[in-house]
Amino acid sequence: MNYTSEQANILVQALPYIQQYYGKTIVIKYGGNAMIDDALKASVLRDIVLLRFVGMNPILVHGGGPEINQMMKRVGKEPTFIGGLRVTDEETMEIVEMVLAGKTNKGIVSIINTLGGQAVGLSGKDAKLIEAEQKDAALGFVGSVTNINPEILHTLANQGYIPVISSVAIGPNGESLNVNADHIAGAIAAAIGATKLLMLTDVTGIFEDKDDPSTLKSVLSKEEALGMIKSGKIDKGMIPKVEACITALDGGVERTHIINGTLPHAVLMEIFTDTGIGTMIESS
Amino acid sequence: MNYTSEQANILVQALPYIQQYYGKTIVIKYGGNAMIDDALKASVLRDIVLLRFVGMNPILVHGGGPEINQMMKRVGKEPTFIGGLRVTDEETMEIVEMVLAGKTNKGIVSIINTLGGQAVGLSGKDAKLIEAEQKDAALGFVGSVTNINPEILHTLANQGYIPVISSVAIGPNGESLNVNADHIAGAIAAAIGATKLLMLTDVTGIFEDKDDPSTLKSVLSKEEALGMIKSGKIDKGMIPKVEACITALDGGVERTHIINGTLPHAVLMEIFTDTGIGTMIESS
Amino acid sequence: MNYTSEQANILVQALPYIQQYYGKTIVIKYGGNAMIDDALKASVLRDIVLLRFVGMNPILVHGGGPEINQMMKRVGKEPTFIGGLRVTDEETMEIVEMVLAGKTNKGIVSIINTLGGQAVGLSGKDAKLIEAEQKDAALGFVGSVTNINPEILHTLANQGYIPVISSVAIGPNGESLNVNADHIAGAIAAAIGATKLLMLTDVTGIFEDKDDPSTLKSVLSKEEALGMIKSGKIDKGMIPKVEACITALDGGVERTHIINGTLPHAVLMEIFTDTGIGTMIESS
Amino acid sequence: MNYTSEQANILVQALPYIQQYYGKTIVIKYGGNAMIDDALKASVLRDIVLLRFVGMNPILVHGGGPEINQMMKRVGKEPTFIGGLRVTDEETMEIVEMVLAGKTNKGIVSIINTLGGQAVGLSGKDAKLIEAEQKDAALGFVGSVTNINPEILHTLANQGYIPVISSVAIGPNGESLNVNADHIAGAIAAAIGATKLLMLTDVTGIFEDKDDPSTLKSVLSKEEALGMIKSGKIDKGMIPKVEACITALDGGVERTHIINGTLPHAVLMEIFTDTGIGTMIESS
Amino acid sequence: MNYTSEQANILVQALPYIQQYYGKTIVIKYGGNAMIDDALKASVLRDIVLLRFVGMNPILVHGGGPEINQMMKRVGKEPTFIGGLRVTDEETMEIVEMVLAGKTNKGIVSIINTLGGQAVGLSGKDAKLIEAEQKDAALGFVGSVTNINPEILHTLANQGYIPVISSVAIGPNGESLNVNADHIAGAIAAAIGATKLLMLTDVTGIFEDKDDPSTLKSVLSKEEALGMIKSGKIDKGMIPKVEACITALDGGVERTHIINGTLPHAVLMEIFTDTGIGTMIESS
Amino acid sequence: MNYTSEQANILVQALPYIQQYYGKTIVIKYGGNAMIDDALKASVLRDIVLLRFVGMNPILVHGGGPEINQMMKRVGKEPTFIGGLRVTDEETMEIVEMVLAGKTNKGIVSIINTLGGQAVGLSGKDAKLIEAEQKDAALGFVGSVTNINPEILHTLANQGYIPVISSVAIGPNGESLNVNADHIAGAIAAAIGATKLLMLTDVTGIFEDKDDPSTLKSVLSKEEALGMIKSGKIDKGMIPKVEACITALDGGVERTHIINGTLPHAVLMEIFTDTGIGTMIESS
Repeated sequence: MNYTSEQANILVQALPYIQQYYGKTIVIKYGGNAMIDDALKASVLRDIVLLRFVGMNPILVHGGGPEINQMMKRVGKEPTFIGGLRVTDEETMEIVEMVLAGKTNKGIVSIINTLGGQAVGLSGKDAKLIEAEQKDAALGFVGSVTNINPEILHTLANQGYIPVISSVAIGPNGESLNVNADHIAGAIAAAIGATKLLMLTDVTGIFEDKDDPSTLKSVLSKEEALGMIKSGKIDKGMIPKVEACITALDGGVERTHIINGTLPHAVLMEIFTDTGIGTMIESS
Repeated sequence: MNYTSEQANILVQALPYIQQYYGKTIVIKYGGNAMIDDALKASVLRDIVLLRFVGMNPILVHGGGPEINQMMKRVGKEPTFIGGLRVTDEETMEIVEMVLAGKTNKGIVSIINTLGGQAVGLSGKDAKLIEAEQKDAALGFVGSVTNINPEILHTLANQGYIPVISSVAIGPNGESLNVNADHIAGAIAAAIGATKLLMLTDVTGIFEDKDDPSTLKSVLSKEEALGMIKSGKIDKGMIPKVEACITALDGGVERTHIINGTLPHAVLMEIFTDTGIGTMIESS
Repeated sequence: MNYTSEQANILVQALPYIQQYYGKTIVIKYGGNAMIDDALKASVLRDIVLLRFVGMNPILVHGGGPEINQMMKRVGKEPTFIGGLRVTDEETMEIVEMVLAGKTNKGIVSIINTLGGQAVGLSGKDAKLIEAEQKDAALGFVGSVTNINPEILHTLANQGYIPVISSVAIGPNGESLNVNADHIAGAIAAAIGATKLLMLTDVTGIFEDKDDPSTLKSVLSKEEALGMIKSGKIDKGMIPKVEACITALDGGVERTHIINGTLPHAVLMEIFTDTGIGTMIESS
Repeated sequence: MNYTSEQANILVQALPYIQQYYGKTIVIKYGGNAMIDDALKASVLRDIVLLRFVGMNPILVHGGGPEINQMMKRVGKEPTFIGGLRVTDEETMEIVEMVLAGKTNKGIVSIINTLGGQAVGLSGKDAKLIEAEQKDAALGFVGSVTNINPEILHTLANQGYIPVISSVAIGPNGESLNVNADHIAGAIAAAIGATKLLMLTDVTGIFEDKDDPSTLKSVLSKEEALGMIKSGKIDKGMIPKVEACITALDGGVERTHIINGTLPHAVLMEIFTDTGIGTMIESS
Repeated sequence: MNYTSEQANILVQALPYIQQYYGKTIVIKYGGNAMIDDALKASVLRDIVLLRFVGMNPILVHGGGPEINQMMKRVGKEPTFIGGLRVTDEETMEIVEMVLAGKTNKGIVSIINTLGGQAVGLSGKDAKLIEAEQKDAALGFVGSVTNINPEILHTLANQGYIPVISSVAIGPNGESLNVNADHIAGAIAAAIGATKLLMLTDVTGIFEDKDDPSTLKSVLSKEEALGMIKSGKIDKGMIPKVEACITALDGGVERTHIINGTLPHAVLMEIFTDTGIGTMIESS
Repeated sequence: MNYTSEQANILVQALPYIQQYYGKTIVIKYGGNAMIDDALKASVLRDIVLLRFVGMNPILVHGGGPEINQMMKRVGKEPTFIGGLRVTDEETMEIVEMVLAGKTNKGIVSIINTLGGQAVGLSGKDAKLIEAEQKDAALGFVGSVTNINPEILHTLANQGYIPVISSVAIGPNGESLNVNADHIAGAIAAAIGATKLLMLTDVTGIFEDKDDPSTLKSVLSKEEALGMIKSGKIDKGMIPKVEACITALDGGVERTHIINGTLPHAVLMEIFTDTGIGTMIESS
């Protein structure tokens, strides 16, 4: 591309936002279709490389739903669920870990590095980044976060690397535990003192009435969000996303956002605008 | 501004250029109308603040022709010239220094700081940055550069400051010397190991035939440039600009450019394009 | 000079004072005749270079009264005063800034550097060192300090530079404001955590009875000083000097002194003696 | 354990070896049965944690043969070989990467961290650690090393982490390439300036006559080793191990060793003895 | 020594203890027969070099009783004691200092350095490490600690040196003072924030009944220890050892131990065991 | 002392010399009467503390002749000499070391620290600073320098300490060796890259004719000095002093001086004068 004066002007208009987030850490939960569609994937990751080069410290957290199911199918295992949570026996856990840490994670790392960034992939086992404990014996190797050891993230960020974290945790005896990636993103944002948490989903945000696009809530207080979970207006996959935002807010993160990762340049549009996009959940 | 997806896309297209110049030093000779017209001034300086925030180290060098003449007139002094060079008696030198270091320099610094940058103004006397000697007794306090002490520039750049340098040098006995700002820009680019030198002027570049806009030379070798000075195709105010480029090239600067600073976002257009704008003078 | 044993002995006697102030910051308000008479000027600045080489961090703040008036006269402007304060219209402000930041400041810097020191001149605009707001619309561009950003002073001092600061501040919109240099010295001493503030004047100190030299007050408490302002015993140009001392004391500076800068080596005599010279104003 | 005086004595005897390798980097190719048998695995990795705590910088490189074959079988893929090299189509490559980077690597990391070490797992994609190119179109995604970017290893080692590297490389377009782990160990030892390279295998070392245990070669020159490859005395899986040693020696590594990783504490016995175990290949 | 697998196993068993004390400071009061018998001396000091190489920061404090008496005899001076304390006139103090700082200290330093460690000997005069005041005019130059300046210990430890400290302090006028080495060890452990204090003696520990070896107290609380001093069960040379432990505990040291330095590898046995040896005195 | 203006003037005249040696290392061989007479001792050491506070890095090397002889006498040992060198049996070596490292060294350290400096005493055993080998079996424990390990001097100087070094070296087996202090001073000046070496003696310098004070040689080339040794004009105790200067010059030291340490402030007079005092020996 050869910049015209008009295009250069657009560049310059980003300056106030760049200044605002210079040197700040932004945790991004990367998931949904933005992680499946190849063009979209490259677009989101290029946005993140840009954030790094304009002085921010982006940290990516990802899960990997569909790829896990494919792999399960290939080895002939049938997924079972209890109350929406995947029952994770030892064999399943092994597949989950191989897919998340060996395929999805390294795929993201490779794209970022090809785009000129410097990514390093981590699972929760590396440097004991994410410690967890078993949630419920009936669910098997499903865990909930007990502790984050963020030193490795500081080490990498100080040297200009972008950490890419897969949602596998280490249990008390070194075993692998399958932990919800949304929850991990919230816990890491809190532990690292992030300025912003961005949760990428496939929908525009949180609605008062999901069938009425005009009822999008641009801003929600923590209390309102909890109320909407109680009342069922926030349900299913949106619940852990909202919980992650609340964990982050309780840990001192300034702003948390649920945005539509399938919109081209959603991440940039959220950061480089005054009003933001999607739904912002804030403390008070 | 609230970024649309298309505008965010323009941002992202800057990525390869940002990567290319990340951590690199770019010396910019700032002058001509780009320094006089207020809107243009703000525009150029905002571009420079942007360069800093996307990871480059811009260093500004400026002269201040018209403002000096105005001040001369106000105190009732008539400018005299020998061979195109201003005869600089002690009283003139005092005015030159006051205008350059006290008015022009601090004006630029103030605008940059208001735009969110962190500028520090320097004259060649500060930390003995620019040492010079008298050129010709007949010209009085007119000097040519003998030595650059770039340490203060490293100190400031390492802390994120943008140095803004006025074209006054320090003589062997601490006296002020009036040195051509183009020459200073070239000497500083060489001494600091800059990657790029940008000379802002009021014309598009160097032409084979100044009356025929279609004869713009996009690229000139050092030898070709010297030939065009000899043949008179490069003349007057363009000569010190070309000399500055050659000083820089001889000192190891990779690329030097003469561009039209009155074009909106000329600096960005030069850096954020493959083909560049104006005339590039290169070593071989 | 070739030191005799007796002279070396005098050197050695300075040791306890050098030890006492080793690594400490000393803010010096430089002004009055010590800034006008050339021999005196060189003498004061050589003393300051010495302070730096024996391990202290001197910071100079200067105004520039007489030079401003001369320049005003040269451009045919008549100074106007309201209640002792210079009415500063835009044209006057421009002259004030040119003289202070372009002439006086660079002159001091040049002498220090010629004496083997490493000075860097700053105005309040550089790195937004001194932020101010308009004092009174009737006075025009006259300001009072609202904030000091001392980071640039730390950056320079850590690298061995002596900062020399002219009394021009930056207003909320980047405009220049004329601020009393005494007040700036006090505010900077407070902001940087100086150990000592020295105010150079043309008189011996503060007297109970100005007509009776035997009534010099060697030490004054803050309360006594305020009382003497109220009673009129401290008046005119001495008032801002005493106010500067009080600002510094309130900001945690240990000792503040009003001394006669026209005495040869007054600065050294104040620092290298147990009893000091002039008048010391202290907190309790 | 409660140390007796005799046991403490054994500890103390290690001192000369600890001193010899203090602060030195030791690259260990971990493989064979030492990576399969659980007790042996824990034992080898505990030895490596010990090396770190007594001041050395161990770096592990691993492949993962048997686990790849198991996974291939589970998804119903039949391994094909050309000239002893696994034909690696895209699907196979995906499985190889998942197993190596997602299972084997994280398993090793987890054990080290449970033993009190601080391991971080890397594949050749992370920070573009291992760049490779396709070896032969007929073999598909099989690569040979073209470049090592060792900066991430320095970053991690400086902070006390033990890097654990799986043998997957990044191709020119970001694709995954399957590279022989022995070759990677040799290339990394050379690139990082290791002091020692240890290749763990299942046999005692290199023999003049494989059927006669008394013909073990304790020391081989590079030339002798090349001769034994030519003459067929070194064959099959031993060839890439010897090639790795030669790459390391050519890159300046002081000593390279082929040792039997199934011997308990083989790593310690090699380092903490004057004569060493297995076969040492040296430069001249 | 060439390690066998069994011996390597003993090495590995030290790992948990090495991990526990990695980077921690351990002050060791070195004295008694462990300082007289040559073989024992080498053995204790080799243990200490080992501690340094496995990541701990050992600091040695020593006195030198018997060597002082020998030297006294050689110059024909008769030791006098008041209440168990050596009356120290000026001549005696001179001999004490020469022996401690010139002979004993340098002897220990030399052995450590010959064993591959990096020791630096200090007396309390160096960098004013140990400040003291006269205890009792009747005793002459006998002092008690008033202040520790531990900066020199940090400087040396950060560079890998083992500080070896002789029990001579500096008085208010620079004079030498003879201070009990046990007390110095306790004061230094407190000032430097040690993790552990080891007092080496010639007996197994503290006994409820000194004539009944079965009554060894493995653990004593500070209160119990004070009680045993009061009741006379702890007496003579054991008193200052216990007082040193209490000083250390009051200064925040975690664990203090009185152990038998004549046991081979007593230091290692205390550190590399769960139960420890000798008597541990702890805070609560 | 309260400085008068005249005395302050003397201070300021030192500035050019302070600037010239700022940050430079000056090795001073301290000996002769300047080390015996108490008033002179305090005076010399105060001069050295001053050097440190005005930015130089002084390093002291001392021997201790008379105190050794006194101690020998006290223990009833008769000194024996072969060719002017003290025959040093084991018992003598022990006394030499005790006196030098335990008495003389700590005495100097104590005075410096009382004067406000920060001295640390070292013998050649500390950090193996001075390695030596036996000179001649007939002389016993007399050594000549084989190697200097200057790291400990850098460590101490970087933290502001003044190293004070006694002339005892460490032999190949850790034994003490008595080495000429002049030679040590020369070897250390060479190894540390000193700018200046000052040898303090009891005479004015080197004379063409020792009986004629008017024949003082202010400057000698290395060749001339060697010639005067050959011809016997330089003899006895002056020989090792001149040899030390030559060792230093060969090691790159710029200037070496033999001066009269009994002159009050001889050290300062040598450094703070253009012409120097005593005899300078220079390379060419």
